Amino acid sequence: MATTQKLAGPTNGVAVEQLLSTVEAVKATPSIAKFTFRIRNQWETGSRNCSIVTSFTGANQQLSHPRPFTLQADEPAILLGKDLAANPVEHLLHALASCVTTSMVYHAAARGIQIEQVESFFEGDLDLHGFLDLSPDVRKGYQQIRVRFKVRADAPDGKLQEIVELGTRYSPVFDSLTNGVPVFVSAEPL
Amino acid sequence: MATTQKLAGPTNGVAVEQLLSTVEAVKATPSIAKFTFRIRNQWETGSRNCSIVTSFTGANQQLSHPRPFTLQADEPAILLGKDLAANPVEHLLHALASCVTTSMVYHAAARGIQIEQVESFFEGDLDLHGFLDLSPDVRKGYQQIRVRFKVRADAPDGKLQEIVELGTRYSPVFDSLTNGVPVFVSAEPL
Repeated sequence: MATTQKLAGPTNGVAVEQLLSTVEAVKATPSIAKFTFRIRNQWETGSRNCSIVTSFTGANQQLSHPRPFTLQADEPAILLGKDLAANPVEHLLHALASCVTTSMVYHAAARGIQIEQVESFFEGDLDLHGFLDLSPDVRKGYQQIRVRFKVRADAPDGKLQEIVELGTRYSPVFDSLTNGVPVFVSAEPL
Repeated sequence: MATTQKLAGPTNGVAVEQLLSTVEAVKATPSIAKFTFRIRNQWETGSRNCSIVTSFTGANQQLSHPRPFTLQADEPAILLGKDLAANPVEHLLHALASCVTTSMVYHAAARGIQIEQVESFFEGDLDLHGFLDLSPDVRKGYQQIRVRFKVRADAPDGKLQEIVELGTRYSPVFDSLTNGVPVFVSAEPL
């Protein structure tokens, strides 16, 4: 991770000193860079289900969150749900937005760029001809996603695009979603 | 959408009658199949940010959720956060799990297949050499995702794989994540 900052205090709320020592630790022991994240999902009824996030593996350890996080999903009435929670494709936008934002903030911090405020708007287009199996030429997933970042930072306006590109360049979700991920699925009786 | 069910009552908590009439409505007026989902994300500090989900466009209308949904994100301490919420790559697994589950449940309902219980386990592998820019050969995103579905349904065990494949075949998030989506990003001052 490129750094231009000499004094490694917190920048953008990121403990830069710890970030730099993580980089050194990974260089010394590459296996600590391997992480596995996991969730358990439980179907309720119709479009309602929830995921529980309890633990993950990283730095050669099994690690737990201080408390389990519960993530709900539903669909709006027009898509036959009760609209009690965001739907899966909205959660996907949140995953993308949160990851690009955090990646930008961390990589800016490592370069000593102070970010003061960030807001972003994500939208994606879907055509139900795909999901409803009405047209083989229409994909099931998002056709495209548009993102608009608004940033106030200790940098000239002309640099803002570059700062946002730190987010898109390093974000694990941005890479996963733009380049695709192999997903292996098995089924068994319950 | 293939249907084998004669009496279109609710199956799996899905209003099958409404599902079938949606199919007919889309056939009659293709433009109602176009949806745009959106979120607004606000950075708090460090790895903490949240998305607000308020409205979406679909069926040629601007539609609102009954109340805005707030989705939080943070990172665990080992990734320099305060661990107050699931992290972006965990949210991505939830988006995938919820979408495959709902897609399976809807398409099974349309075929008259009763599903009684579903649990699933999603896990994905990340190598921080990517995010930390320590190795150009290591991708930033998930290297692979493994999914294990456990299903109790009104079907022989040998059919369970087929039922789960209804989920993966029709899920918008599964398609988005396995095949990739173009993402266009702009930046401006706040």
